[in-house]
Amino acid sequence: MPQSPQRTLGAFMLVSVDGYYCDANGDMGFAHKAADDDEWNVFVGRNASGGGALLFGRVTYEMMAAWWPSPMAAQAMPAVAAGMNAAQKIVFSRTLRTADWSHTTLVNDDMVGFVRRLKADPGPDLTLLGSGSIVTQLADAGLLDRIQVVVNPVALGGGKSLFAGLTSRRELRLEDSRTFKNGAVVLWYEVR
Amino acid sequence: MPQSPQRTLGAFMLVSVDGYYCDANGDMGFAHKAADDDEWNVFVGRNASGGGALLFGRVTYEMMAAWWPSPMAAQAMPAVAAGMNAAQKIVFSRTLRTADWSHTTLVNDDMVGFVRRLKADPGPDLTLLGSGSIVTQLADAGLLDRIQVVVNPVALGGGKSLFAGLTSRRELRLEDSRTFKNGAVVLWYEVR
Repeated sequence: MPQSPQRTLGAFMLVSVDGYYCDANGDMGFAHKAADDDEWNVFVGRNASGGGALLFGRVTYEMMAAWWPSPMAAQAMPAVAAGMNAAQKIVFSRTLRTADWSHTTLVNDDMVGFVRRLKADPGPDLTLLGSGSIVTQLADAGLLDRIQVVVNPVALGGGKSLFAGLTSRRELRLEDSRTFKNGAVVLWYEVR
Repeated sequence: MPQSPQRTLGAFMLVSVDGYYCDANGDMGFAHKAADDDEWNVFVGRNASGGGALLFGRVTYEMMAAWWPSPMAAQAMPAVAAGMNAAQKIVFSRTLRTADWSHTTLVNDDMVGFVRRLKADPGPDLTLLGSGSIVTQLADAGLLDRIQVVVNPVALGGGKSLFAGLTSRRELRLEDSRTFKNGAVVLWYEVR
């Protein structure tokens, strides 16, 4: 019997033009300023609720878990909210003790081993959403197959860099790109 | 009599996907690896020799001054070499004592004042080539009008970040973008 193809792990990161996913105060607000672009909102919504399992670090998880189950989210973006709430979710954190958002698995240790086993199991593709240090760790472990980078039209001058602390450089292959009216540019890469 | 329109200052920077213009060892080689793309080579050549005055820091100047006047450059890229050698050039350095490349002016101090006066004079537009700390200083002084960023398909994990040390964030307006077969993506921004 042929082996089922291994599912892939992609990451979705929003950065400034100088490569930061949050500013020097840990704020990611710069990436959501230009949101008055309907086409962009549809893109992000579809992207986040695309059917696969979602992986987060604690910070991103807590932001999303506070928003998507809320009545405001259900009213503002009903289809996306339903998709996010129904999706299989995994949050990595050494400190969280519970994770109450529906369909969420909390992983307190051995993130790399967990992801390696997850990828070996059959199932839908995996998407890591906006969790900078985890992107680096999984890329270093050779587990990151794709990254989708949204370059926002702002220069921050400081903050936390995408891939900070990567132990060796990784070549990427540009697969596609798309430009939005709000000035965001989406770049799809395969990680080699 | 109407005042002549002020000439503009643009910068041309090559970065990795994580926003570095050189790696942790000061090496910019990552940005030139994917050079086996004729369309890209033509683009870079035209871009660098576009007719305006060229501004550099010492490091970029020394690299270019070693290459463009050489017989090898004249043979490999004759039109670009002729354009680069004929262009008006300005190098900013506190330590250089002479700058022998044809049509080069050496500026040892008050870079910001010099550029402010230069912009107030009539003349062709100005292009700053690949000099990271100067980009930050001129953007902070409100003198940078445009930046053209080439995002290369590589993650470095560390190095010197574009706009490092900027005192306050700058909003940008995406004017255009272009993707090359070698995986480089060129983004044109107006600095606000």
